Amino acid sequence: MDIGTALGVILGFVVIIGTIAIESHGSMAIFFNIPAIAIVVGGMTCATMVHFSMAQFLSIFSVIKKTIFHRTPMPQQLIQRMVNYSAINRRDGALALEQEVGKVKDPFLSKGLQMLVDGAEEDAIRDLLGLEIQYMEERHAMGKKILDFMGASCPSFAMVGTLIGLISMLSKMESPDEIGAGMAVALVCTFYGALLANLVFLPLGGKLGQHSKVEKMAMEMTVEGICSIAKGDNPTAVGEKMQVFISTRHREAVKAQI
Amino acid sequence: MDIGTALGVILGFVVIIGTIAIESHGSMAIFFNIPAIAIVVGGMTCATMVHFSMAQFLSIFSVIKKTIFHRTPMPQQLIQRMVNYSAINRRDGALALEQEVGKVKDPFLSKGLQMLVDGAEEDAIRDLLGLEIQYMEERHAMGKKILDFMGASCPSFAMVGTLIGLISMLSKMESPDEIGAGMAVALVCTFYGALLANLVFLPLGGKLGQHSKVEKMAMEMTVEGICSIAKGDNPTAVGEKMQVFISTRHREAVKAQI
Amino acid sequence: MDIGTALGVILGFVVIIGTIAIESHGSMAIFFNIPAIAIVVGGMTCATMVHFSMAQFLSIFSVIKKTIFHRTPMPQQLIQRMVNYSAINRRDGALALEQEVGKVKDPFLSKGLQMLVDGAEEDAIRDLLGLEIQYMEERHAMGKKILDFMGASCPSFAMVGTLIGLISMLSKMESPDEIGAGMAVALVCTFYGALLANLVFLPLGGKLGQHSKVEKMAMEMTVEGICSIAKGDNPTAVGEKMQVFISTRHREAVKAQI
Amino acid sequence: MDIGTALGVILGFVVIIGTIAIESHGSMAIFFNIPAIAIVVGGMTCATMVHFSMAQFLSIFSVIKKTIFHRTPMPQQLIQRMVNYSAINRRDGALALEQEVGKVKDPFLSKGLQMLVDGAEEDAIRDLLGLEIQYMEERHAMGKKILDFMGASCPSFAMVGTLIGLISMLSKMESPDEIGAGMAVALVCTFYGALLANLVFLPLGGKLGQHSKVEKMAMEMTVEGICSIAKGDNPTAVGEKMQVFISTRHREAVKAQI
Amino acid sequence: MDIGTALGVILGFVVIIGTIAIESHGSMAIFFNIPAIAIVVGGMTCATMVHFSMAQFLSIFSVIKKTIFHRTPMPQQLIQRMVNYSAINRRDGALALEQEVGKVKDPFLSKGLQMLVDGAEEDAIRDLLGLEIQYMEERHAMGKKILDFMGASCPSFAMVGTLIGLISMLSKMESPDEIGAGMAVALVCTFYGALLANLVFLPLGGKLGQHSKVEKMAMEMTVEGICSIAKGDNPTAVGEKMQVFISTRHREAVKAQI
Repeated sequence: MDIGTALGVILGFVVIIGTIAIESHGSMAIFFNIPAIAIVVGGMTCATMVHFSMAQFLSIFSVIKKTIFHRTPMPQQLIQRMVNYSAINRRDGALALEQEVGKVKDPFLSKGLQMLVDGAEEDAIRDLLGLEIQYMEERHAMGKKILDFMGASCPSFAMVGTLIGLISMLSKMESPDEIGAGMAVALVCTFYGALLANLVFLPLGGKLGQHSKVEKMAMEMTVEGICSIAKGDNPTAVGEKMQVFISTRHREAVKAQI
Repeated sequence: MDIGTALGVILGFVVIIGTIAIESHGSMAIFFNIPAIAIVVGGMTCATMVHFSMAQFLSIFSVIKKTIFHRTPMPQQLIQRMVNYSAINRRDGALALEQEVGKVKDPFLSKGLQMLVDGAEEDAIRDLLGLEIQYMEERHAMGKKILDFMGASCPSFAMVGTLIGLISMLSKMESPDEIGAGMAVALVCTFYGALLANLVFLPLGGKLGQHSKVEKMAMEMTVEGICSIAKGDNPTAVGEKMQVFISTRHREAVKAQI
Repeated sequence: MDIGTALGVILGFVVIIGTIAIESHGSMAIFFNIPAIAIVVGGMTCATMVHFSMAQFLSIFSVIKKTIFHRTPMPQQLIQRMVNYSAINRRDGALALEQEVGKVKDPFLSKGLQMLVDGAEEDAIRDLLGLEIQYMEERHAMGKKILDFMGASCPSFAMVGTLIGLISMLSKMESPDEIGAGMAVALVCTFYGALLANLVFLPLGGKLGQHSKVEKMAMEMTVEGICSIAKGDNPTAVGEKMQVFISTRHREAVKAQI
Repeated sequence: MDIGTALGVILGFVVIIGTIAIESHGSMAIFFNIPAIAIVVGGMTCATMVHFSMAQFLSIFSVIKKTIFHRTPMPQQLIQRMVNYSAINRRDGALALEQEVGKVKDPFLSKGLQMLVDGAEEDAIRDLLGLEIQYMEERHAMGKKILDFMGASCPSFAMVGTLIGLISMLSKMESPDEIGAGMAVALVCTFYGALLANLVFLPLGGKLGQHSKVEKMAMEMTVEGICSIAKGDNPTAVGEKMQVFISTRHREAVKAQI
Repeated sequence: MDIGTALGVILGFVVIIGTIAIESHGSMAIFFNIPAIAIVVGGMTCATMVHFSMAQFLSIFSVIKKTIFHRTPMPQQLIQRMVNYSAINRRDGALALEQEVGKVKDPFLSKGLQMLVDGAEEDAIRDLLGLEIQYMEERHAMGKKILDFMGASCPSFAMVGTLIGLISMLSKMESPDEIGAGMAVALVCTFYGALLANLVFLPLGGKLGQHSKVEKMAMEMTVEGICSIAKGDNPTAVGEKMQVFISTRHREAVKAQI
């Protein structure tokens, strides 16, 4: 779980609501406006439905969930695990890895191990797992594109909502003295749009981009490790090949663990 | 037919009109303003006529129609069909495919089959169908470019319209007390521009981009299948070569069907 | 002549002036403001003079003229002509083409024919005419860059003009009741800037880009045809080689004509 | 000297000041506001100091000077000169060029000639002079980057200044009737920012880009000429090799001169 | 230490505070508003936490520190040092460099020297140090990305804060006469956002980009020098190989020093 995503969004809303409480001297009711929420979220949702295909549109929630409940892979752990597999492979042969396959939760690693058990060659492993990495990247890129579109769409529909409020109010206004309350209601839409875009959708899209980078590196490390085992390298060589991917500062920590 | 496009636009307008009904307490007449519609749609249309060639300009409606009435190709179906053709080809020879050509509605697939019947070689098939894919992509890209230009042009002419309204109103205004009604009328233009751009033209342009991707993949799958049949592969090999294009999750479903 | 360019600009102004007539209830005088025109057009012109070299700056009018009086080359006609030249070449030899050179108005085609008459080899033709195509593209790209800069500069100087109007008006205003008329005059600048940029300069820049694409294709078709004749291909082969550049839908029409 | 740069900026200011004189009916004093100039120019200067290194920051004036006092190299003259050097080289040998080195003001050409005198080979000349061209391009690109940053920074600090003016004015305002004069003062900042960015910094950055292109072409022509002389080509061949860089229309003029 | 960064930020604040002091005629209190600072800095911080990973988020301070306390490497010094090492290497052998390793503060140079002492070959040195350069660049690029995101996020949350202030004020306003003070408080948020983005975060991001370029060049010079020593080049050759990286103008100064 990526604690930063949830923490950032929650803390952000705490800061905003706190400021509202202080600035409005207790009369916060005006900031909770059902029609304003309806037009910003509704308009954005409809535009997203038009922009993307039905399947992509319905994946929004799973995309958002992924930015929060994301198992960040730990390189050190991954290297240690691969070194173990390599030791098993050299001691008891590739078939002995079969019982390890069941214990692994990560489907990508599990698929790689299964290919080792099946005696696949290095090139076949690289091709198939490389295709998986490409699919993962495209899925993440599409998720990021949806979130970015939503982040750009929010302020636009907020403006539409504010315009509706302004026009309604102005058309019935009899003197500029009445402008205050109506204007306040109209601006609540703009407020929702700016908040949702800048605190929720755009940063979530950015986070998905970061996850994609980290996950890709872990997958490439896994491929390197599996291929090294497939070639029958000894555990030390497997560990060294995988270390290329991590920074010098972290290599000392890894060496100590193995 | 792409249900999402029509549904999104219609639902979007329902949300907007609903909000208007609630906010304006029944006096919705101000939101329907013929001169405002004339300047936003008229200005945008004229700018599009200047920007693009006459033929491109006249294709706007067929481009918009394509975002709604688009037959999304289903990969599973396509694979099954190709496997059948492959079986016919190996059992009765390429000439037996001639009667299948007439049954096919998709002109691209029909052209590919005809080349099989004519005994064309793999390279010739790849060259000619590849050129067709490129033409399709360029047509879609030009359509997306037109819709994106219209989406960018809408708010600009909405601003021009609002400025005309404001200037007319301000120049005859005798006291700030009269600002309300005139301002409301002027802002209706801005409202139309924001709505048309963000609910209609920009998302439609995005949808065209999605369709282009999906259609390209289906065409590439078709080329792969036709070429595999041309080389005389058995039905299973044809199916496996085409499966490379679809995600692992969907491959199980395809295997079950064949 | 590109009828769309002139028609679009004229129709656009008709729509705008019509809306002004309706909205201002006859008092259109405020929309025609000499100092406002002076600052928008003058400022934009000076900034363009600073941005580009003197020669580029002085080419603005010929660039704009080119977006209107542009002879769109017709591929079908070009193919037919080349097929004729090819027939003459095979029947009477390359020297017989000399009398055709004088009849041709297009300098590019004329240069290509002259090279055929001079007995130039394929590579030399490709090199020299290729360089001409590159020059044409760079000239068009520079023209588009100038128009785009003018389109971006217009609203900026409109804002400068509006600010001058606002500051002058506000500094002498004694009560908000006087804000109306002064504000109207100031906003006329913004109106000119938005109109010139979105109806004239930006779409004209776009049109130049479209012309460049079409002209480049016609030039490349010409090169292909000339080179095919230089190699002594028969008229049918010349026609087929040039057809690669046009869409399938149009090929039928061409075949019927030849 | 690039007359367009100075002329454009001066004419631009004439247009602006003229409009101010007309619009303000003589009371121009409000447009000259020392604190407003201080915050726009001061803020922009400080931000530029933070953004770039000290040496880059101190080069601003020499960069701006270069956009005005720029000796545009004339291709025709350059070709003629090279043809002369070539004649001297073939008649009296490379050492006879030594006395020409001193007469040349352009350090780049002078360096190339010196290499000819020293008997350097073609590859060595190309390498060393190519490095010089690359340095020139990077210097110009950095200059353009600084001017573009200043052009983007101006309106931002103008906004900061306007906000300071507005907040000060509003916090002491007792009735909306007083809004006029204070607002006018605050908007002067926005006016300076828009003017400096759009009339001075952004167009100057653009001009630097144009100069860089022209200068690069002249340098590449020089390299081609020097190398041609180094290989002992005759004057006609030297002239023809250099002509490749100039447009067909200008080639006739050059041929007449040589 | 990069004096320009600190000086620019401090001078910038002096200019701003000076202008405030002059414009507000002493009543500066309104410009220091705790809730406004809380929402701009708080919102920006939360959005950054959502956008980046926890480790990247926590590195913000070390990233900012790096833009101020950055030891700009001096090429002349570096060349001189390398020439000395080369002399030691040729006189006393590579092992004699061991005592120099301890004296060096720069970890990159120290690592390179250690490899010389260990007798590593040129290719191994290039590979390992090249990887270090790549890591440095990625670290800097991520730091620049964080600062740029903060610079873009600041004005957005400033707008959110201003909207909160406006809505609160307008909803309780009974006549337009009260608009002044409330509006002033609301605009303070916008002021903070514009100031932090344009004087602090965006220029700091730019400076990081400049540092990255300079540091990369110094590292590449070091690699060239170390490799030249490893090949046993004489001191003069080492100096000449490293000079390729510096401009002609500076080469004279270097030659005089060595």
